[in-house]
Amino acid sequence: MLGRRLRLAVIGGGSGSFIGAMHRQAARLDDRFEIVAGVLSSNPEKSKKDGAEIGLPADRIYTSVEEMLVAETARKGGIDVVAIMTPNDSHFEYAMSALEKGFDVICDKPMTNTLQEAEALHKMVLDSGLVFCLTHNYTGYPMVRQAKAMILDGQLGTIRLIQVEYVQGGKADESKPDPSASWRFDPVRGGPSLVMGDIGSHAHNLVRFVTGLEVSEVAAEIGNIVPGRAVHDYGGALLRFTNGARGSYWVTQAAAGVENCLRIRVSGTKGTVEWMQEFPQALTFKPLGAPSQNRTPNGPGTLPFAKRSSRIVAGHPEGFHEGFANIYSDAAEAIAARRSGNQADPLALHFPNSFDGLMGLKFVFGAIESSKANGKWTSC
Amino acid sequence: MLGRRLRLAVIGGGSGSFIGAMHRQAARLDDRFEIVAGVLSSNPEKSKKDGAEIGLPADRIYTSVEEMLVAETARKGGIDVVAIMTPNDSHFEYAMSALEKGFDVICDKPMTNTLQEAEALHKMVLDSGLVFCLTHNYTGYPMVRQAKAMILDGQLGTIRLIQVEYVQGGKADESKPDPSASWRFDPVRGGPSLVMGDIGSHAHNLVRFVTGLEVSEVAAEIGNIVPGRAVHDYGGALLRFTNGARGSYWVTQAAAGVENCLRIRVSGTKGTVEWMQEFPQALTFKPLGAPSQNRTPNGPGTLPFAKRSSRIVAGHPEGFHEGFANIYSDAAEAIAARRSGNQADPLALHFPNSFDGLMGLKFVFGAIESSKANGKWTSC
Amino acid sequence: MLGRRLRLAVIGGGSGSFIGAMHRQAARLDDRFEIVAGVLSSNPEKSKKDGAEIGLPADRIYTSVEEMLVAETARKGGIDVVAIMTPNDSHFEYAMSALEKGFDVICDKPMTNTLQEAEALHKMVLDSGLVFCLTHNYTGYPMVRQAKAMILDGQLGTIRLIQVEYVQGGKADESKPDPSASWRFDPVRGGPSLVMGDIGSHAHNLVRFVTGLEVSEVAAEIGNIVPGRAVHDYGGALLRFTNGARGSYWVTQAAAGVENCLRIRVSGTKGTVEWMQEFPQALTFKPLGAPSQNRTPNGPGTLPFAKRSSRIVAGHPEGFHEGFANIYSDAAEAIAARRSGNQADPLALHFPNSFDGLMGLKFVFGAIESSKANGKWTSC
Amino acid sequence: MLGRRLRLAVIGGGSGSFIGAMHRQAARLDDRFEIVAGVLSSNPEKSKKDGAEIGLPADRIYTSVEEMLVAETARKGGIDVVAIMTPNDSHFEYAMSALEKGFDVICDKPMTNTLQEAEALHKMVLDSGLVFCLTHNYTGYPMVRQAKAMILDGQLGTIRLIQVEYVQGGKADESKPDPSASWRFDPVRGGPSLVMGDIGSHAHNLVRFVTGLEVSEVAAEIGNIVPGRAVHDYGGALLRFTNGARGSYWVTQAAAGVENCLRIRVSGTKGTVEWMQEFPQALTFKPLGAPSQNRTPNGPGTLPFAKRSSRIVAGHPEGFHEGFANIYSDAAEAIAARRSGNQADPLALHFPNSFDGLMGLKFVFGAIESSKANGKWTSC
Repeated sequence: MLGRRLRLAVIGGGSGSFIGAMHRQAARLDDRFEIVAGVLSSNPEKSKKDGAEIGLPADRIYTSVEEMLVAETARKGGIDVVAIMTPNDSHFEYAMSALEKGFDVICDKPMTNTLQEAEALHKMVLDSGLVFCLTHNYTGYPMVRQAKAMILDGQLGTIRLIQVEYVQGGKADESKPDPSASWRFDPVRGGPSLVMGDIGSHAHNLVRFVTGLEVSEVAAEIGNIVPGRAVHDYGGALLRFTNGARGSYWVTQAAAGVENCLRIRVSGTKGTVEWMQEFPQALTFKPLGAPSQNRTPNGPGTLPFAKRSSRIVAGHPEGFHEGFANIYSDAAEAIAARRSGNQADPLALHFPNSFDGLMGLKFVFGAIESSKANGKWTSC
Repeated sequence: MLGRRLRLAVIGGGSGSFIGAMHRQAARLDDRFEIVAGVLSSNPEKSKKDGAEIGLPADRIYTSVEEMLVAETARKGGIDVVAIMTPNDSHFEYAMSALEKGFDVICDKPMTNTLQEAEALHKMVLDSGLVFCLTHNYTGYPMVRQAKAMILDGQLGTIRLIQVEYVQGGKADESKPDPSASWRFDPVRGGPSLVMGDIGSHAHNLVRFVTGLEVSEVAAEIGNIVPGRAVHDYGGALLRFTNGARGSYWVTQAAAGVENCLRIRVSGTKGTVEWMQEFPQALTFKPLGAPSQNRTPNGPGTLPFAKRSSRIVAGHPEGFHEGFANIYSDAAEAIAARRSGNQADPLALHFPNSFDGLMGLKFVFGAIESSKANGKWTSC
Repeated sequence: MLGRRLRLAVIGGGSGSFIGAMHRQAARLDDRFEIVAGVLSSNPEKSKKDGAEIGLPADRIYTSVEEMLVAETARKGGIDVVAIMTPNDSHFEYAMSALEKGFDVICDKPMTNTLQEAEALHKMVLDSGLVFCLTHNYTGYPMVRQAKAMILDGQLGTIRLIQVEYVQGGKADESKPDPSASWRFDPVRGGPSLVMGDIGSHAHNLVRFVTGLEVSEVAAEIGNIVPGRAVHDYGGALLRFTNGARGSYWVTQAAAGVENCLRIRVSGTKGTVEWMQEFPQALTFKPLGAPSQNRTPNGPGTLPFAKRSSRIVAGHPEGFHEGFANIYSDAAEAIAARRSGNQADPLALHFPNSFDGLMGLKFVFGAIESSKANGKWTSC
Repeated sequence: MLGRRLRLAVIGGGSGSFIGAMHRQAARLDDRFEIVAGVLSSNPEKSKKDGAEIGLPADRIYTSVEEMLVAETARKGGIDVVAIMTPNDSHFEYAMSALEKGFDVICDKPMTNTLQEAEALHKMVLDSGLVFCLTHNYTGYPMVRQAKAMILDGQLGTIRLIQVEYVQGGKADESKPDPSASWRFDPVRGGPSLVMGDIGSHAHNLVRFVTGLEVSEVAAEIGNIVPGRAVHDYGGALLRFTNGARGSYWVTQAAAGVENCLRIRVSGTKGTVEWMQEFPQALTFKPLGAPSQNRTPNGPGTLPFAKRSSRIVAGHPEGFHEGFANIYSDAAEAIAARRSGNQADPLALHFPNSFDGLMGLKFVFGAIESSKANGKWTSC
């Protein structure tokens, strides 16, 4: 393997960004990256200040992505990987630039704001042979991985029924007008459906990740439940899956008082698994005809894919950061393998990639189309 | 008030019936009824045997409903009320007969198997002025009533979003063929959609009861997820409510390993309430901008409608039987008031009635129609 | 078996008594008793009024226990059983009188206020051959019985460690002076240690019931944590059991905001069970080296003793009333068998009896003695 | 402040050590340390190999602590801080050496194996003015800190009752003999009472941290419940606190099937807080006379001390690593302030220190003395 840490550049994540700090902590936790360069903000002054704040050397704090990619390409010991954590509408441009110059890419979700961009980006990834990792971080939780591994192992039998919901309250307070300055309330920058891009894509990806099934058709309604709001704040759907399974899907950011309830339930012919992000250390497994079980990270019955995704003995909870770090560390494994010409551990290769990003966009646009067509079942 | 217990006759609920014992225990718990007569089974011999088993005097065990209604009408000290707990396809006939002869009626849900019957029965109830109580028993749980009372009190503000699910596993085992002898697998006796009649009507009624809103339109898919099954075993829907609120609805009896997960979540502009039947002693209230609360029966903040629905001090759980008994006791209050010409306690008058039954049938048929029309939004 | 309901007289439980209504509902639920006579209060006028309130015929409402026992003995179709639900200091007198006259007895806990009385009463029960049932009602919960049955079945191996706690908040509010009128704040009427009699005896009995072990020695501190209070409001202890197991014991009524947290955890060589009264429908079983399980009433793995203690299919919670009713129904089984000369179902004979009451008193007095001796290990 | 990361050397934590990886991840997460040197093992070859494994440069991997401290003192850009994560019996020696040479110290718990050592070390810390941080990591969880902050803020009133338990199952499997090679089964290396040093000291420290109270007297029994075991595997105690509060204490590593149940409950005159390590994102607050609340990290009502201890918005769980990292980051704050002559943020100064370590040893020895004296109340 590569005998050193990967050299990482960050794009975005300056002061005030929640997700920027998450990316950097995720990169650091398992010590497979060193953050050596960055464009922290599109505002040059802010980029300098925020770059210094996170400890970057002055000569590797850049004020444009293009500038950074050129300079780091030329530099001896320049960067290996670029991590993108900017608003949704710039993911495509920065990811394409980085891939064109031969850098592996870690990118926040949703992958792009349009389907055309998603297709182009996915093609670019395939053509380049580079690693592209999309940070659908919830797939990094040990018990989400345990659920996937149990299903792959046949412990649930044929999947029949799926429920997924992602309910938040961040946009519920109607006593305050929507902040027009924020891109999260701006339908232009935020993409075709903010609730779908922000959290709906997570819910969709989680279902695909856990079950291995694709949504074949969707019947949806997406809109704004808060009167007068410019962006979507809820989306509901019924789902049909490629194997005939059926599903229910519900996402909103307007549920007053709810914090971050991402919840999935999958029933197969042999049993049901249930997982909730707010208590991620618990996976409930309800086998047909036997007592319901509480599965825990590294507890009895842990399968290898979950075992390698946990750093600690059973009973000691890991959280959001460790799940996020699992995605980063898996990407590191893939990148290091590619660079050294070695085989990566196959269990490392389940991190979300550009195909997953493309499928996410297809689902979002399928759901929007269905919603416009009065809930008609629509392929996606 | 009426200075004595009401005299109750039971129709159905012979040995082997789960729901029969529930009705009788519910009737007994608060000592407002005495069970004095019955037709326990359509099989005369079984009716005799089962009637004796539950302690009925031999001369008040009948072998046909008609016979019983005639005899008890003639009898001094004859019955006041009839409770119907037979398979779905006979509810209409027995209820009509009883009402025609001037008896108040307590009837298991769904009210009828057809919309026409529901309309006729509802009209009959209105015309007769008699009490008709439909045992949507989940509306009897203290914390369901607390949720309703909090919403009536304005503590949730304007209702925006509703999620309801009723997930069971009783029809999940695909290794055994469906028992053709059971009316619960028979599309003729069970009504137009067994999953909707059995549990879907409970879910729908619970939403209406708690929120006070009606479903205006539904986009649904209902079917059998278990291959080769003759009756429906799942139903999913998106809902639009009269006030513009939106909802997600999911019911199934084919979720392997799940016991009885009826769960509702209602978000208004001021907060969210969440309730789950498997832990009915807990109501979670998540006010906007304040800590989430665990409400308990008779705990702090209990409103009068919940208070009168609980028999015990906070911290001592009540269950299914007590919720069921609340419906019976409320019906007793209404019947005793009617008979004595007094006013009933207004808080007793929230038990489900023939209007609720009619709305349930309208919803089920609306959802079936939508499902047949490829998920089209359909009035109901 | 006895071909009729048992005729029950109640002593105590007039208006204002919480436990009285519980006893009567428990007696009614399974229809094995009819309540036909009573002395509801030591105040004659109140007894008359409260007796009428619960539907007793005027000629069977008595104003003294002695009067009732004499009259009912003489009466054709007189009472079979007496249920005592008076303050602690009168249990002994009423129970002895009833037994002396040949009546079976159901009595609230603690059995008596002194050890001498407990010994005399237990001897009387043995000598008379009558049924004596002590309503340690928590032993009636289906999942408590499942825990006992699993231990009897060897599923936990040798018991090593036991934790029990009973934490309430009913005496926590220090802003109000203790109500001197209430016998629950009166050290004379309430017995030697109110917290121990009220809830400590429940905790002790629950441990004995579930594990089948006796406490051999106790090291305790019992006292009043609220300054200036005349009665005990907390008790802590370490326990040694006859088989060498060790335990921790903690009871209090002064934990502000806590409702009714009776909780037990038992670890054997093969696993641990955990149960909490506030969510009695769940028994957690943590087998050594296998995933933790959630056991539910009538769920997979239910053993016969638990199965017969539940009235309903899995997933439908039962509560306090059903547990209490299990005690009454088991007593009915024993009494009916005794009267008819038949064998009772052996699974019915686990209800708490006078031996359990005696062991409870021994424990309470052992703990008090230890507390006075500066926590010295004391036999009990 | 210090304009750079602190340079950290690790002692212990070689391959096979669980806690070593935890320390290093905790040091990395917030980017306030760089790990530059170390003695990974007392075996020179293993130290070299394990040091390279964690990315140390070859010339800063040492084979003895003394050698490292001398070399790094001489080196330009040498280490600032030493982190000790070796078996218990070596903490004292290494910590004293490091302090003598002027290094700040981060040390795993228990601080020492004897009371004399603890007193000497504490004196050394005071005399030197250096920072000494003891990694009682559970005090780093945001909701533990919220509990402490609420109590400091008076939200619980006067503390009356405390329950703490730390229950594990790691030493429960009696089918396998105790591994004599492990220091965790060796009474000589592991200290006077392994269960007390390992987890009992955590439980004791957690109580002191949350309540701010000291244990004044203890009545205890400590021993081995598994027959034939050489080290203690359970300890039970009753506690008296300096302000008159009372407590119950229970720790064991022999509870089959239990993972890591550290649980605390504190009742004051105004309410109760409850916290459990297995679900650390939840703090239950039960105010007197108002509904019970679920507090979450960064949720409504979060106080500043908890707020600064959480990296993420409400609803996204943090775990063991983040709590551990909070201790490291607070220590970094204190060390950087000391070195730069600035004031540290006062909220950073609540990490456990040598006084806490000394109090822990006093408690352990007090409990052992009480246990030997047949449970006599003993000062500590």
